[in-house]
Amino acid sequence: MSDSSLITQLTDAFRCLPGVGPKTAQRMVLHLLERDRDGGRRLASKLALAMEAVGNCESCRNLTEATVCEICCDPRREARTLCVVETPADVLAIEHSGSYRGYYFVLMGCLSPIDGIGPAEIGIDALLKRCQKSIEEVILAVGSTIEGEATAHYISEVVKPLGVQVSRIAHGIPLGGELEFVDGGTLSHALQGRKIL
Amino acid sequence: MSDSSLITQLTDAFRCLPGVGPKTAQRMVLHLLERDRDGGRRLASKLALAMEAVGNCESCRNLTEATVCEICCDPRREARTLCVVETPADVLAIEHSGSYRGYYFVLMGCLSPIDGIGPAEIGIDALLKRCQKSIEEVILAVGSTIEGEATAHYISEVVKPLGVQVSRIAHGIPLGGELEFVDGGTLSHALQGRKIL
Repeated sequence: MSDSSLITQLTDAFRCLPGVGPKTAQRMVLHLLERDRDGGRRLASKLALAMEAVGNCESCRNLTEATVCEICCDPRREARTLCVVETPADVLAIEHSGSYRGYYFVLMGCLSPIDGIGPAEIGIDALLKRCQKSIEEVILAVGSTIEGEATAHYISEVVKPLGVQVSRIAHGIPLGGELEFVDGGTLSHALQGRKIL
Repeated sequence: MSDSSLITQLTDAFRCLPGVGPKTAQRMVLHLLERDRDGGRRLASKLALAMEAVGNCESCRNLTEATVCEICCDPRREARTLCVVETPADVLAIEHSGSYRGYYFVLMGCLSPIDGIGPAEIGIDALLKRCQKSIEEVILAVGSTIEGEATAHYISEVVKPLGVQVSRIAHGIPLGGELEFVDGGTLSHALQGRKIL
């Protein structure tokens, strides 16, 4: 098929998805065309809709098609804790664990001056504004990369003056993790964070 | 996010793609929303277009948005051979190898009475009609499954009476294949199909 054929164009368009190379894209296109046109039509319409309608929650910056997202709108959640995460996927992971009932704030990245991501880009003003509403503890659930550590340090410095307690989620050995296969950085965190029994 | 949110609906819609489970679907949705809205829009529009416009070539049954596909329209191809394959992906694979310059006929499956796929479903009438136009040899490039063998046998029985030569592509050890790792069926084909030097 030539470069101008619709099938080739669709195959190329599929390559915008993460982890999809030419072979997978071709498999997806032929699967939809041969076996699941309804699924393909539904995907096309939801995709077109979502690309236009989904924006960021005014309160927590998470992705949502509403002005304020469902979690921020839910009055049954615990109003005194705010969990700060890097991405919407982190919110989904914590929600899925079922171990947290407070609110969230999504940075949509972390501080990285070299990439031009400063305090404004990760929404520090919105975070400070959010902290003034009934929040007593900010839990930093950002990654333990260099950028994550810098972001955690920065947020803790700007939030503490508001009289809000700042904590950081624990780093250590994962449940069921074999000590001998755990990396040095994690081991050193686990030792430093040991608890007296 | 609740079941009714657009993001959840889009994640579900992505699961119609082969090899895409809930985690991969979520990763795709968040990637497009956070980083590649233009790619998402382009994918949505090409997908909507292709699902409606792509049909089957009147001559070879391959997928195309035209009435007759590009290969069938190309007068420079060798007009005396017709290669019979099961799927459009097989056409792409043979074209990619660059080793064949004749025309194709795509069965869009193979004979499987238990699934209700008989001669009509694999387009035997169209194949016989196609064979009457300048074709001197039909090359059967169908799979070596039970259904593939049955299909090859059936086609050879109906095509031979038209005075057309019927051949089958060779089965054997793949190039660079290690003999000790090749399965028994392939080895037995390779031994039966040996050539005197």
